[in-house]
Amino acid sequence: MNIDGKAWRTIWLEPGGRSFGVIDQTQLPHRFTTRSIASCDEAAEVIRTMVVRGAPLIGVTGAYGLMLALHADPSDASLAAAFEQLNATRPTAINLRWALERVRDRVALLPESERAEAAKQEAAAIADEDVAMCEAIGEHGLRIFQELAAARPAERQQEPLRVLTHCNAGWLATVDWGTALAPIYKAHRAGMNIHVWVDETRPRNQGASLTAFELGKEGVPHTVIVDNAGGHLMQHGQVDAVIVGTDRTTRRGDVCNKIGTYLKALAARDNGVPFYVALPASTIDWTIDDGVAEIPIEARSAAEVTAIQGRVLSGPGAGEIASVQLSPDGSAGFNPGFDVTPARLVSALITERGVAEASEAGLRTLYAGS
Amino acid sequence: MNIDGKAWRTIWLEPGGRSFGVIDQTQLPHRFTTRSIASCDEAAEVIRTMVVRGAPLIGVTGAYGLMLALHADPSDASLAAAFEQLNATRPTAINLRWALERVRDRVALLPESERAEAAKQEAAAIADEDVAMCEAIGEHGLRIFQELAAARPAERQQEPLRVLTHCNAGWLATVDWGTALAPIYKAHRAGMNIHVWVDETRPRNQGASLTAFELGKEGVPHTVIVDNAGGHLMQHGQVDAVIVGTDRTTRRGDVCNKIGTYLKALAARDNGVPFYVALPASTIDWTIDDGVAEIPIEARSAAEVTAIQGRVLSGPGAGEIASVQLSPDGSAGFNPGFDVTPARLVSALITERGVAEASEAGLRTLYAGS
Repeated sequence: MNIDGKAWRTIWLEPGGRSFGVIDQTQLPHRFTTRSIASCDEAAEVIRTMVVRGAPLIGVTGAYGLMLALHADPSDASLAAAFEQLNATRPTAINLRWALERVRDRVALLPESERAEAAKQEAAAIADEDVAMCEAIGEHGLRIFQELAAARPAERQQEPLRVLTHCNAGWLATVDWGTALAPIYKAHRAGMNIHVWVDETRPRNQGASLTAFELGKEGVPHTVIVDNAGGHLMQHGQVDAVIVGTDRTTRRGDVCNKIGTYLKALAARDNGVPFYVALPASTIDWTIDDGVAEIPIEARSAAEVTAIQGRVLSGPGAGEIASVQLSPDGSAGFNPGFDVTPARLVSALITERGVAEASEAGLRTLYAGS
Repeated sequence: MNIDGKAWRTIWLEPGGRSFGVIDQTQLPHRFTTRSIASCDEAAEVIRTMVVRGAPLIGVTGAYGLMLALHADPSDASLAAAFEQLNATRPTAINLRWALERVRDRVALLPESERAEAAKQEAAAIADEDVAMCEAIGEHGLRIFQELAAARPAERQQEPLRVLTHCNAGWLATVDWGTALAPIYKAHRAGMNIHVWVDETRPRNQGASLTAFELGKEGVPHTVIVDNAGGHLMQHGQVDAVIVGTDRTTRRGDVCNKIGTYLKALAARDNGVPFYVALPASTIDWTIDDGVAEIPIEARSAAEVTAIQGRVLSGPGAGEIASVQLSPDGSAGFNPGFDVTPARLVSALITERGVAEASEAGLRTLYAGS
């Protein structure tokens, strides 16, 4: 991850170990600022308000949040309360719970005096493992992109490989590299001619604001489109592959990801475009089979639909970040945050262990004991 | 059409007959203002800048634009130049050309002194016929809604019939009634319990701004959603029917409508939800068969993707209508205005003459001589 020539992570322990830092993603792409988090309450707040977002990054943030709670009060009651507080912030993201459980299980049997330090080590391990997993996803995805590029007809070999992505599953959603964007960064660094169609991803526009920001900083050619445009592009042969992340993946390979993902998967299927999902194993929920029926979908604030944030282009407040109302006073909004793409629409799952068919049998080839 | 207790049309001849009035749709839903148009140049400008939009209304605006050109200069050269100027404003909308040709053919053989008056009569006739056609579409669509409502299981009879629509095909897109919304108004006035999911319809948000405005003024229960949400709602049984308009319909029933329509049609098919398209005959292009291959899709300004207009909620300029930039400086945008939904995904076409299968055979049952 490269921002103006400097290597960053999205989350880091600050000197002294009693606080951690994050990039404030609510100000992107217009302002690059960081936040220092010194309490479990603040950790919960930055997850809830989406200062940090993305399933893997939320998990690490939760883990460091538990560490801060244990610094303040290492008792069992404190641990349990902090766990519940953090876990309630984003009910859909499976690996928030996974990361919280991992830290809790690590510290639960330790003397209170050792808990905060153990939580710190566990959170740091989760972060480091996430970086390694994302890089491995990137390598596996790169090979798929190389095969797709090579399989194109001779007259198209000089054109860029055109990849469409939805939402942000890049380094801003993880600790580094990203999931869906990791193969794109690997391809770009390997010198492949690649172009990315960036779905803006209403309502919060993580595509237009975050994915476009990332790709711009990395120098990857890209074009922002509205979420409505992808089907048309696929009908006209302008998309060679779709790749997205996932917040939760069921045992049989159903994929719960940002609202609208399912529509792109339908269009990909209708036009013979391969549809890939990139994920670390921590997003797999082995307890769930049918994603549409079984995964609870959080309804977020209607205000995310009826208004949107951006940088004022002219007039009073020009240059300021402001919210503008889009719909009439009195019109209600409804805002489901995610949808489920059935496994039948997924060409393959790209994990840190390799590429699998989107099925229980496929996942078991990579995760035999899970 | 009802705005705060007063019956309106979207376009009207002003006293004296040398100008016409329109509702300025670029200011909706935040401000209701009208514009007076006194020249062909102004008529072309209000079409191009989407002060007026919607295939039928664009046609009538073009027709009155020709009238203004003939008032200024009734020569053959003036007629030809005005025709080309107006026709070039929106290349995808088939019935702009249809309306312009109708006025041109009406006046071409007349003495110059009679042309402007004849153009006025023809434009007024097109407007009146549009109102009648839209009302007839409403009656035919109402019967479909009544059948859908009655066919629901007993335990759902007390619930509203839930209809999803994309973009704005209401009275603001026509002279009165609308196309896709006409059956909804008919149903509401007939006392049917109906609820409308309103796709916001990025990039220009005609759903969130115009359809929500119309439905609010008519008192029809509705909820604004992002374009990404419709597939999820259909997966969960929350949509009983989809109904949209069309800018151009091919001989075999392919439908060219606002970008994103195709994605909703795919989701409807995948979930067994009927997908209806409402259209006056003037949108049928009998010269074209395969809409994906043959219909030129206008690429509009990328600025419609990278920025959006709304009413500033707080801070400097609060209450003002402003544009805010959504994506980072340096990220390009691409903005295809329409997509094509293949006939295979369309459950039925609802026209002023009745309901037809989306096929050439189906259309021929209603339009035998076309």
